[in-house]
Amino acid sequence: MQLYSKKRVEIIVEASFAPTILEMIEATGATGYTVLHEVSGKGHRGLRAESNLTDVFSNVQIIVIAAEAIAREIVSKSQPLLENYAGIVTMSNVDVVRDDHF
Amino acid sequence: MQLYSKKRVEIIVEASFAPTILEMIEATGATGYTVLHEVSGKGHRGLRAESNLTDVFSNVQIIVIAAEAIAREIVSKSQPLLENYAGIVTMSNVDVVRDDHF
Amino acid sequence: MQLYSKKRVEIIVEASFAPTILEMIEATGATGYTVLHEVSGKGHRGLRAESNLTDVFSNVQIIVIAAEAIAREIVSKSQPLLENYAGIVTMSNVDVVRDDHF
Repeated sequence: MQLYSKKRVEIIVEASFAPTILEMIEATGATGYTVLHEVSGKGHRGLRAESNLTDVFSNVQIIVIAAEAIAREIVSKSQPLLENYAGIVTMSNVDVVRDDHF
Repeated sequence: MQLYSKKRVEIIVEASFAPTILEMIEATGATGYTVLHEVSGKGHRGLRAESNLTDVFSNVQIIVIAAEAIAREIVSKSQPLLENYAGIVTMSNVDVVRDDHF
Repeated sequence: MQLYSKKRVEIIVEASFAPTILEMIEATGATGYTVLHEVSGKGHRGLRAESNLTDVFSNVQIIVIAAEAIAREIVSKSQPLLENYAGIVTMSNVDVVRDDHF
């Protein structure tokens, strides 16, 4: 089984800000993304606190699997967008089978 | 603290197809799996679009932590299963404390 | 774009036990955490089974991005806490842009 190296970008932001991030991701040419809902958090400049009884889990986790150049572009372009918003952006290595999907 | 190298397999598929994938995972001898619900997505051959108002977040994210041989078997066996379905499969490195759990 | 190496700790536990884990995480000096809800699972000593019709997806996934020393402390301190509970703890490498956030 041949595996190919790609990058996994994980972005956690307030749900209300997700459309802005997803629009940026699509503009980079990434072939797709995944959004996990029902996400809460604490710290990192304003992510909602789990202990807040009125918390509505209003963060989301966005995952993009992409070639390194596109992944780095997403990470880079997320920084000015998140300047005034809570947000966590990480990039890590993953292996995939379907090289042409990403 | 002694750490042991394992693999983390992450599979994103339509929820209706998850039982087929989980059955395959169990057959490999993996000791367990985790399923995250409330997942949406776009691209990658048909994952539902976030922007679709009728979206019911009907994807799931399946995570398996396993020894490399089992993880590779899961990745390999997922490919023919996903031939006609939307699906994203990645494998990455993780460290664990409890070597015998996985 | 300058990237910095951090660790990503992922902990999957029963939701009822999450406050104990989160209190430990905060005590380590980690700057924040993320909690993903609507998580189910099978195996690994008692995580609830997906196939159980009464399942209420009562696990959570906790993610912490931290410097290695803090991440290792979280992994280490999670072990005695999880002695009698179901739980999966993994640590992996991630790159971040904002070195001072974590």
